[in-house]
Amino acid sequence: MKIAVLGYGVVGSGVVELMHKNPHTINQKAGTDIEIKYILDIKDFDDSPYKNLFVKDFNIILNDPEIEVVVEVIGGLNPAYRFVKESLLAGKSVVTSNKELVAVYGDKLLQIAKDKNKNFLFEASVGGGIPIIRPINQCLAANEIESISGILNGTTNYILTKMIKDGYTFEDALKNAQQLGYAEANPAADIEGIDSCRKISILASLAYGEHVDPQKVHTEGITGIKLEDTRYADKAGYAVKLLGIISKNDDNTLYIMVAPFLVDKTIPLAGVEDVYNAILVQGDAVGISLFYGRGAGKLPTASAVVADVIDCAKHVNARKYLYWKSSDGSFIADYKKMPFKRYVSLISDSDISVSDIKSVFPNADIYTDFDKMVFISDELNEYDFDERINALEKNTGASVCSVIRVFNLNQENGEKKWD
Amino acid sequence: MKIAVLGYGVVGSGVVELMHKNPHTINQKAGTDIEIKYILDIKDFDDSPYKNLFVKDFNIILNDPEIEVVVEVIGGLNPAYRFVKESLLAGKSVVTSNKELVAVYGDKLLQIAKDKNKNFLFEASVGGGIPIIRPINQCLAANEIESISGILNGTTNYILTKMIKDGYTFEDALKNAQQLGYAEANPAADIEGIDSCRKISILASLAYGEHVDPQKVHTEGITGIKLEDTRYADKAGYAVKLLGIISKNDDNTLYIMVAPFLVDKTIPLAGVEDVYNAILVQGDAVGISLFYGRGAGKLPTASAVVADVIDCAKHVNARKYLYWKSSDGSFIADYKKMPFKRYVSLISDSDISVSDIKSVFPNADIYTDFDKMVFISDELNEYDFDERINALEKNTGASVCSVIRVFNLNQENGEKKWD
Repeated sequence: MKIAVLGYGVVGSGVVELMHKNPHTINQKAGTDIEIKYILDIKDFDDSPYKNLFVKDFNIILNDPEIEVVVEVIGGLNPAYRFVKESLLAGKSVVTSNKELVAVYGDKLLQIAKDKNKNFLFEASVGGGIPIIRPINQCLAANEIESISGILNGTTNYILTKMIKDGYTFEDALKNAQQLGYAEANPAADIEGIDSCRKISILASLAYGEHVDPQKVHTEGITGIKLEDTRYADKAGYAVKLLGIISKNDDNTLYIMVAPFLVDKTIPLAGVEDVYNAILVQGDAVGISLFYGRGAGKLPTASAVVADVIDCAKHVNARKYLYWKSSDGSFIADYKKMPFKRYVSLISDSDISVSDIKSVFPNADIYTDFDKMVFISDELNEYDFDERINALEKNTGASVCSVIRVFNLNQENGEKKWD
Repeated sequence: MKIAVLGYGVVGSGVVELMHKNPHTINQKAGTDIEIKYILDIKDFDDSPYKNLFVKDFNIILNDPEIEVVVEVIGGLNPAYRFVKESLLAGKSVVTSNKELVAVYGDKLLQIAKDKNKNFLFEASVGGGIPIIRPINQCLAANEIESISGILNGTTNYILTKMIKDGYTFEDALKNAQQLGYAEANPAADIEGIDSCRKISILASLAYGEHVDPQKVHTEGITGIKLEDTRYADKAGYAVKLLGIISKNDDNTLYIMVAPFLVDKTIPLAGVEDVYNAILVQGDAVGISLFYGRGAGKLPTASAVVADVIDCAKHVNARKYLYWKSSDGSFIADYKKMPFKRYVSLISDSDISVSDIKSVFPNADIYTDFDKMVFISDELNEYDFDERINALEKNTGASVCSVIRVFNLNQENGEKKWD
């Protein structure tokens, strides 16, 4: 089986390297010999051992009937979307690691793949090398998925870990991540939560069968997280984590959002550190499953891409059942109605008393031994919380310094399913 | 598609319950309506809503050409092996949760399935509801698997957690587990490590493509773990866990064993508590992946069984590539050659000095503030360790009280891949 690799960046070079590293294992699993016939890149790679494979014109690949699988690892929407669409329309299967492409155009591309009876696979688009697309789609197929919660971005998890463990400020942790190559010169897509938003949108689309437009997903990044917040949270038994979360309601609407959360240290997600990712899936039969590993990087991501290529080889004429339909997004519920406890830190010129807080948040856990007045509020939706916190500010003259949600899925029925 | 369920115990009743709980999701994923036509059990279930489905004669199922998939959830080897073999020979696909069956006869049954172009699937046999068979077989297909290490038995993990967290003795923790239904009246298969041995044998067979006879896997249980050992280990930064481990050597031989280990708390397996299971897989491309969830229980196990039934429905005429060949086991290396650091506790009538220990184990970490003399030895294979510990006993008159290996895979190249 002959394939083409579009893009020779980090992931693309990893795919080519892995195909040449473990050919015996790969070909045995595929049941056929897989050969890279072309690598598409605008740059020259004259020193590469694969220099004879490079082409600059996509049409060479598109018009070559020998190419059965196109691997798109360019990233971004343009020209990736056009290349993938044309490849599928030409009757080739496509494998991609491009989360932006899948999050934005997944429904359209899956429809073309279905119409053409070809595969469009994207295991690498979420969680890098961590198996997550197949497990949700196949292994948990007998379950109603109740919730998904994930640390989906290694860069932000590395930054938060440096803050929590080594006392770095956000700015210093970001610089450190950039020096190590974990964060890009322009880190916005990571630290603003955009990357996590794309990934949680893909998981929601997959788990619920309708396309979730990432633009409809409320997204907060970690730029507002202060070092002192991570320290107070740690002392109170929590880690601060950027999570993408999905929670299914009884009326089949979905809460879905990306934001920093305080995660109780007894929940497995709290212990996920550095550049690692983890995804916690709650199914009505299986209970909690957690998938953990390297969410990015050259060979981990290539591992997932090549696994998809192997699956294409095994399903040349039998499409994998992987599909979600287009949607207007009307099943996405207002995230502000999702109830959470919230971590709050206050500054004030005068003393604020425990009873001041209790008068507004009667069930608050109040920490009086920190430099600031810190408490964990009652469980409230955002409208009610905002009303009460405004009242507290007005009553006491204090100002809210930080507010961070406390992670607790399936809180409405009071059941902590990880116990 | 019509199926038959053999055995209406915990798992069997869970399968029937789940099929009736989520029929829409299941049939949609399967692409066809799945109907349970028969349930085989020797007992009567006159009050069951499914009472019309019960039969007592396996031949009714075997000889019914409408039955395309047989679900074997009886457990044990007899009559399960005969039923499964005859079903495959009759051209039916088989799904099983029976780890003993797969561990002992997996190669023979996979060969029949291959010859008949039918499926023999067993996702539920390891890790209960945790997706692990497909992830290793498909998602990590591009990797050379370097090691697998798993907490594979929920009963023993519950017992160890009660000892570590709540200070129960082994005997009290076992009684508690029996009261809660986590341990059977005869708990030998769990606490002696036999159940874990079957599961690690299945994972080894799957990952390396050759059948691993569980009888060739060195197996130690947790009956020798003393409460004080869990306490000393905890203070030294370790959790005590019963692990099944596989480690691939450069000459393609495998170390494989089941035993209690001290697991450094920075390794994700250490935090896996109560009845949860977790499996850590190291691949040469993906690095570390970890899969975590409920390793047993009615609905979690049924979740994995029904996922396999769905896959059978999708692959009626296209066999899933899942296979390992028979083997004489000559690739299994002598476990005593595997190097480990070891936790050692000593009792002695006279004082033992740090220098006594250092004279035999020059790199030992010695803990002098416990009631007993405790140390973590140099990294040695078991022959060398035994020689030195005998010398220490002889030199000092002390007696070894406990020896527990310290988990550290891929230690030979000094690389701790979870850092």
